[in-house]
Amino acid sequence: MEIVFLFYDGMTALDAVGPHEILCRLPNASVKRVALKSGLINTDSSLILKAEYSLSNVQRADILVVPGSGSATTLREYPDVLNWLRKIHTTTTWTTSVCTGSLILGATGVLAGLKATSHWATLDRLHIWGAKPINARVVEDGKIITAAGVSAGIDMALALASKVAGQKFAETLQLGIEYDPAPPFDVGSPDKADPLILESLRKRMVSLFESIN
Amino acid sequence: MEIVFLFYDGMTALDAVGPHEILCRLPNASVKRVALKSGLINTDSSLILKAEYSLSNVQRADILVVPGSGSATTLREYPDVLNWLRKIHTTTTWTTSVCTGSLILGATGVLAGLKATSHWATLDRLHIWGAKPINARVVEDGKIITAAGVSAGIDMALALASKVAGQKFAETLQLGIEYDPAPPFDVGSPDKADPLILESLRKRMVSLFESIN
Repeated sequence: MEIVFLFYDGMTALDAVGPHEILCRLPNASVKRVALKSGLINTDSSLILKAEYSLSNVQRADILVVPGSGSATTLREYPDVLNWLRKIHTTTTWTTSVCTGSLILGATGVLAGLKATSHWATLDRLHIWGAKPINARVVEDGKIITAAGVSAGIDMALALASKVAGQKFAETLQLGIEYDPAPPFDVGSPDKADPLILESLRKRMVSLFESIN
Repeated sequence: MEIVFLFYDGMTALDAVGPHEILCRLPNASVKRVALKSGLINTDSSLILKAEYSLSNVQRADILVVPGSGSATTLREYPDVLNWLRKIHTTTTWTTSVCTGSLILGATGVLAGLKATSHWATLDRLHIWGAKPINARVVEDGKIITAAGVSAGIDMALALASKVAGQKFAETLQLGIEYDPAPPFDVGSPDKADPLILESLRKRMVSLFESIN
């Protein structure tokens, strides 16, 4: 099973590493980390990851994962990446995204007419590409699964693991990473957050994403 | 604020990347990723991360994070690493670990007499170094905070962010990564897991860790 992660400068490390920690343990998984050009990738938290493959080295995927970005860097400036995503999407069983990765999928056109989610601060922008924004942690429409912001990639990957390898297998993976979350505060989504914190963060994030679209 | 992550071959990527995504956004954070020798680090999921610093380049830390490992690779074979950890620990405000990272801290001697946690499958092994194993997701004793398996590092880092920068700041970080977890199954800890899955996984993990101690 070919599992392909798209890496790019400015990506959010946890968007990819959460699902990676789960999906790499699927039966017969062969994981490829792919970038416009193979080599070292600067994430938006200054952590550096390696992509072993360039786009031209990867022609297909059973599962494709597109992480998001909290920086002004955008893949949408690169037609080669969008064209590659369109091509890989025709070969996948599952095409997935985490956080603002759904905006990248949107820009390829594959979300047109479909339900999808994104980071809460950018959810409305899915309209730009004809998708139907859904306020949910994980949204499945056909073979496309989109996850909400950053940490939602873990929930998405476990749900996907269950589809691919069965619920018992997914439960084993979940127990393996001891995923019995206990956040110190119950403020992780807009409807639960302090309104002042929410508006401050929304302004920063919305202006960031408006500047690149 | 100097935040130092110990990286090493065989480490579990998510143990480090979960806390990294949170702690790197603390006010005035300067994050250093440090290994026995600077360069590329092979994690236990085949993902490659970069450590920009060697041990000799880092003399102190305000916050130290020691991730765990699901592989047979062990840092405890390297006296230089243990000595460096002992030295850095004398300079920290907070010394932390995720998953089996607490076994590495244990091997340095700094957990003797203290309460600590670890991945559920290795919790009992904390006795070896005179620590008091506590079955909890995050355990604080003095300036040492230990987290349970893999994903618990996210909860630990948010709790630590609150101590360092205040609850409102931590809430902003939590909302930023949309950490409102919704695991597809409620099986992420031993008391909730299917007994057959639990015993199968326990046997595999216990034998792995017995082979290296």
